[in-house]
Amino acid sequence: MNKNSSNIMALAPNTFNKKETVCLFGTGDFGRALGQKMIQSGYPIVYGSRSTQTSSLIPKDAQVMSHAEAAQKASIIIIAIQRQHYNFLTPLAEILHGKILVDVSNNLKINQYPESNAEYLAQLVPGAKVVKAFNTVSAWALQSGTLDASRQVFVCGDDMEAKQRVMDIVRALGLTPLDKGSLLAAQEIENYPLQLFPMWKFPILLSLGLITFFFFYCLTRRVIYPYVYENQDFSFSIAISIPNQICPILALILLSLVYLPGVLAAIIQLYRGTKYRRFPDWLDKWMLCRKQLGLVALAFASLHVLYTLIIPIRYFVRWKISSRIISQALSNKTEPFSNTNAWISDSYVALGILGFFLFILLGITSLPSVSNNVNWREFRFVQSKLGYLTLILCTAHTLVYGGKQFLSPSSYIWYLPSAYMLSLIIPCIVLVIKFLLVFPCLDKPLTQIRQGWERNPEYSE
Amino acid sequence: MNKNSSNIMALAPNTFNKKETVCLFGTGDFGRALGQKMIQSGYPIVYGSRSTQTSSLIPKDAQVMSHAEAAQKASIIIIAIQRQHYNFLTPLAEILHGKILVDVSNNLKINQYPESNAEYLAQLVPGAKVVKAFNTVSAWALQSGTLDASRQVFVCGDDMEAKQRVMDIVRALGLTPLDKGSLLAAQEIENYPLQLFPMWKFPILLSLGLITFFFFYCLTRRVIYPYVYENQDFSFSIAISIPNQICPILALILLSLVYLPGVLAAIIQLYRGTKYRRFPDWLDKWMLCRKQLGLVALAFASLHVLYTLIIPIRYFVRWKISSRIISQALSNKTEPFSNTNAWISDSYVALGILGFFLFILLGITSLPSVSNNVNWREFRFVQSKLGYLTLILCTAHTLVYGGKQFLSPSSYIWYLPSAYMLSLIIPCIVLVIKFLLVFPCLDKPLTQIRQGWERNPEYSE
Amino acid sequence: MNKNSSNIMALAPNTFNKKETVCLFGTGDFGRALGQKMIQSGYPIVYGSRSTQTSSLIPKDAQVMSHAEAAQKASIIIIAIQRQHYNFLTPLAEILHGKILVDVSNNLKINQYPESNAEYLAQLVPGAKVVKAFNTVSAWALQSGTLDASRQVFVCGDDMEAKQRVMDIVRALGLTPLDKGSLLAAQEIENYPLQLFPMWKFPILLSLGLITFFFFYCLTRRVIYPYVYENQDFSFSIAISIPNQICPILALILLSLVYLPGVLAAIIQLYRGTKYRRFPDWLDKWMLCRKQLGLVALAFASLHVLYTLIIPIRYFVRWKISSRIISQALSNKTEPFSNTNAWISDSYVALGILGFFLFILLGITSLPSVSNNVNWREFRFVQSKLGYLTLILCTAHTLVYGGKQFLSPSSYIWYLPSAYMLSLIIPCIVLVIKFLLVFPCLDKPLTQIRQGWERNPEYSE
Repeated sequence: MNKNSSNIMALAPNTFNKKETVCLFGTGDFGRALGQKMIQSGYPIVYGSRSTQTSSLIPKDAQVMSHAEAAQKASIIIIAIQRQHYNFLTPLAEILHGKILVDVSNNLKINQYPESNAEYLAQLVPGAKVVKAFNTVSAWALQSGTLDASRQVFVCGDDMEAKQRVMDIVRALGLTPLDKGSLLAAQEIENYPLQLFPMWKFPILLSLGLITFFFFYCLTRRVIYPYVYENQDFSFSIAISIPNQICPILALILLSLVYLPGVLAAIIQLYRGTKYRRFPDWLDKWMLCRKQLGLVALAFASLHVLYTLIIPIRYFVRWKISSRIISQALSNKTEPFSNTNAWISDSYVALGILGFFLFILLGITSLPSVSNNVNWREFRFVQSKLGYLTLILCTAHTLVYGGKQFLSPSSYIWYLPSAYMLSLIIPCIVLVIKFLLVFPCLDKPLTQIRQGWERNPEYSE
Repeated sequence: MNKNSSNIMALAPNTFNKKETVCLFGTGDFGRALGQKMIQSGYPIVYGSRSTQTSSLIPKDAQVMSHAEAAQKASIIIIAIQRQHYNFLTPLAEILHGKILVDVSNNLKINQYPESNAEYLAQLVPGAKVVKAFNTVSAWALQSGTLDASRQVFVCGDDMEAKQRVMDIVRALGLTPLDKGSLLAAQEIENYPLQLFPMWKFPILLSLGLITFFFFYCLTRRVIYPYVYENQDFSFSIAISIPNQICPILALILLSLVYLPGVLAAIIQLYRGTKYRRFPDWLDKWMLCRKQLGLVALAFASLHVLYTLIIPIRYFVRWKISSRIISQALSNKTEPFSNTNAWISDSYVALGILGFFLFILLGITSLPSVSNNVNWREFRFVQSKLGYLTLILCTAHTLVYGGKQFLSPSSYIWYLPSAYMLSLIIPCIVLVIKFLLVFPCLDKPLTQIRQGWERNPEYSE
Repeated sequence: MNKNSSNIMALAPNTFNKKETVCLFGTGDFGRALGQKMIQSGYPIVYGSRSTQTSSLIPKDAQVMSHAEAAQKASIIIIAIQRQHYNFLTPLAEILHGKILVDVSNNLKINQYPESNAEYLAQLVPGAKVVKAFNTVSAWALQSGTLDASRQVFVCGDDMEAKQRVMDIVRALGLTPLDKGSLLAAQEIENYPLQLFPMWKFPILLSLGLITFFFFYCLTRRVIYPYVYENQDFSFSIAISIPNQICPILALILLSLVYLPGVLAAIIQLYRGTKYRRFPDWLDKWMLCRKQLGLVALAFASLHVLYTLIIPIRYFVRWKISSRIISQALSNKTEPFSNTNAWISDSYVALGILGFFLFILLGITSLPSVSNNVNWREFRFVQSKLGYLTLILCTAHTLVYGGKQFLSPSSYIWYLPSAYMLSLIIPCIVLVIKFLLVFPCLDKPLTQIRQGWERNPEYSE
């Protein structure tokens, strides 16, 4: 849509004189793209540049003049220049006095400089009102109009009115301003576009560690052991059988790690007898990445489902089934139908399906647009009640799958239990503690503590 | 991100003097959390409290004084106190005269009191401008900054300017205010956080009823009948076979119930010859929960897909197939390939896959963030055209699955038809009526009626 | 929620006198629905109508008078009348002078008139300030309150203050105004509700073309050839086997077409030695529909997964497997287990699963609410790095699936190679070029060009 309007805009200069002139220092990619976008939105633009020669790349309706001249034409000056060249502004301090300077700069590394670019700018030009904005938007996004990545523009600054006027410009460009407070937030805002999924780092590193451990664990039991003792080559199970054992294990462990901090917090609160003392830092951090842990668990559960559904298509499985049938046919005996086996097989599959189904529901409600449309009670109902039900179903799925193997010595190869037994440790601990916490003798004091009651009020810091 | 800014905020008191002082009555959890958040956003905060002793829990930058003193310091007073203690405000009526009182309270039950808390507050302090706000936000969400559940803050009040100023505070805290009108909307706003999926109640209760009915229906046909007459134990089919029969039946019935009110409305409009008379109440309510009905139907369809894909892994299925193969091998005869069977089997599976695929598409477009990005014509195209195509495909899937069973007497156990036959009744009715409505003799008058034409204009109420 | 408030609103007329009176010309469906909604939001409404007789359909709290009288009561007049009747406004020009006229009209066809309705209105009443708004909202959505389709209201107009006041009304109704600039944008805004997925047209037409081609290609190889030469009827493979061959082919081709324009652009930039010359138009358009191409590819990949997982349930497959087992049993020989086959089968399945899993991740991050919550770096990481990994995995999946068939002459029926070989052409080209572009001798100049360096600066237009 922007395309058309940009083409026809040039024909209608009379529509522009309603908005105030904005000055842009810097004619680089970003300066040009932002200027073009602002002209389309009806702002008269004046560029301040070292060379006042009009380049063909600069938007047609913009004027280009010296920095000093350009700054005098407008009360808002956008500094689209890299931080290392900011010192050219010092001689202009007098002209810039009282004006609004918008810092749009980004750095190459997180916390590259001791102070943020915007604060540095405020030090260089003490008389100006510095506002940080637009650093999360790329030149390319402005030009193409495809703002698929965030439309959010973080804005901060010490002067309320200056900030308000910059936020008005942001809104006029069809973007969404978000007030982040005083200029002290600039560091944070400048770090934001350099982040790469910071909340996901812990869950993903944890998963990689667990994958490595369980891969070698399963490799030992399923490939190395038969090769050493039976001289059989099961190396092909690296492709599917072993991943399909690792995925459900990780899904179950990570899902239980979503609920472990909650029960730990309850124990700490019960022990302390108050909710007014801060949790240890690691517990706080753990609690804040529960959503990400849960989604990584869901990813592994989904892979497990795909790996499982594909089983009947595998060459190995088809060969094994057909050779067993042939040997039965040749020896003229049929396996009798076992009702117990049918029950075990059907019920662990059914538990898995229901658990996965609820897991998907949890995943859908964690989508931002869905969780924005539920109230707090509904969100807690889904994430807590349905979440625990999911954990119970998935744990039961694994327990029934194991069946009688627990007690059979043949499943302890090299004294190593089956990998799925290891995966059951944390979920069972979580469920047992949660079960205990439901009893009135523990639930009642916990509820009181959470409503503000304190066992030893003098304890509070 | 809030964390950092809150830590550094304390160092920069000069950035705060731009915003007006706000007074908070009540130093409970919510009062403290809200105060902390407001201080972070640059508002000077004064607490009004019975005991003016500063507790360690109260935000450091806030002052604590008596209610009367605190109220005099600010023109906006947030009442973070439970409704039953509101009467302490009566003696303060003079000081509060003309001030903005923000009611943030919630109740424990829907419609707990005859009038809303905010209206009760307005009666107690008649000279004040009462605004309802912030009741949908929890203390925990404010503290942790993880506003996963709604950022929406419903605001209502009789004084426009007071409401506007409260909405500015809401925005400054990074939340989204939503103006709900006059103070009469307070009841509704206070009920909102107590709701638990009100729109989903009908579809879920209906599903539970249908599940119960079809469970016993299938149990009779598949477990009790063979046990009574053939003394065979098929109880294991409770785990998968019966759910996999109930799920598609419910998916189909619920999907057809999404489209039934539309055709009923068309019939009513055709019969009445006008669109200007209200539909019966039940039809209105039914129409408003069509989206939820459809999503529940999609959930059952997804379960049906999972249950179906898992079939070849079941012990019972593997045993049945291998014993049939062995008996054929032993009797030295091979079943000839039937092209008809191949066609029937492949086409009902293909119809099911395509139907499910379109169903998933419908589900995706009902996500709030997706439906916000399509225009009205596109939304109707997807929900109506693609929706009917889904219904046609799913009905055809069931019809072809049934195949020749309809006429075979052996499928009527104890005179009960197969459960899937029952599931076809409503979809077929909907499709037949819809098919009739497409004919010009019905479509033309209907279109005219929907464009405002009336057969008997004097009929309109 | 709106329902309740509308019922109780009528009891509280005193809450309305704060907002300014708004005049509505036209008492049709839309005029009535908008008036009702505005009354609920606290605006006093005056209808201007040819007949001043109050109809039962007009909201109760609204007054109805002649056009001239109504216009005098308000400074904002909403024209809820069809364009062809606009000329009745000419005699009112004097009364309308200086007032804000809101054009809410829509057309029946895209670009139906040479100028937009709003511009036509501005010509008819030159002294008025015309604002375009509300055309994307339907009467039904206003009445029912179920604004499932977009809440966005596009607003444009030449007078800033008039536009601002209309946007305030939009916000008060609970809708989201979006400033599209001057009145020249009205054409675009009027076309918007008439569009039917314009960005999806090219990907869908391309898919239909490719489907047709590959359908007849596969039909020839799989149905016609065996019928002609071996007199075998494989027509049933039209239902599943052929779609399951077409779907993965289309998924792979479309996915590679998402990444082809990127490498073409790199080649063009390297050849030209500058990034400051516009790409050819077709490349620009292609780049803008990459998201849609990718999502259509994902749809085909999902269908392929469903078709594949259903394989073991098909009658044809069961019959083939059991007849092979029986013939082996009867001839008393068992096929030996082939480790190579196990590796090939398991690894192509595993590659497919991982590719599909990443593809789903890409699809989820393209949901508007998810992509709004990631920064630019994260968005590019997912869409570019993970995207290429997906393409590599899917191409490898197809290559391993093919296995040794490439060189086997028996797979060239009627000199036609297997369809999947054709599908590998574009992905392999994309991956080879991308691989070459990673080498420093090409990567270094490309990075420089993208940072603004030019080989022949005089080249720039």
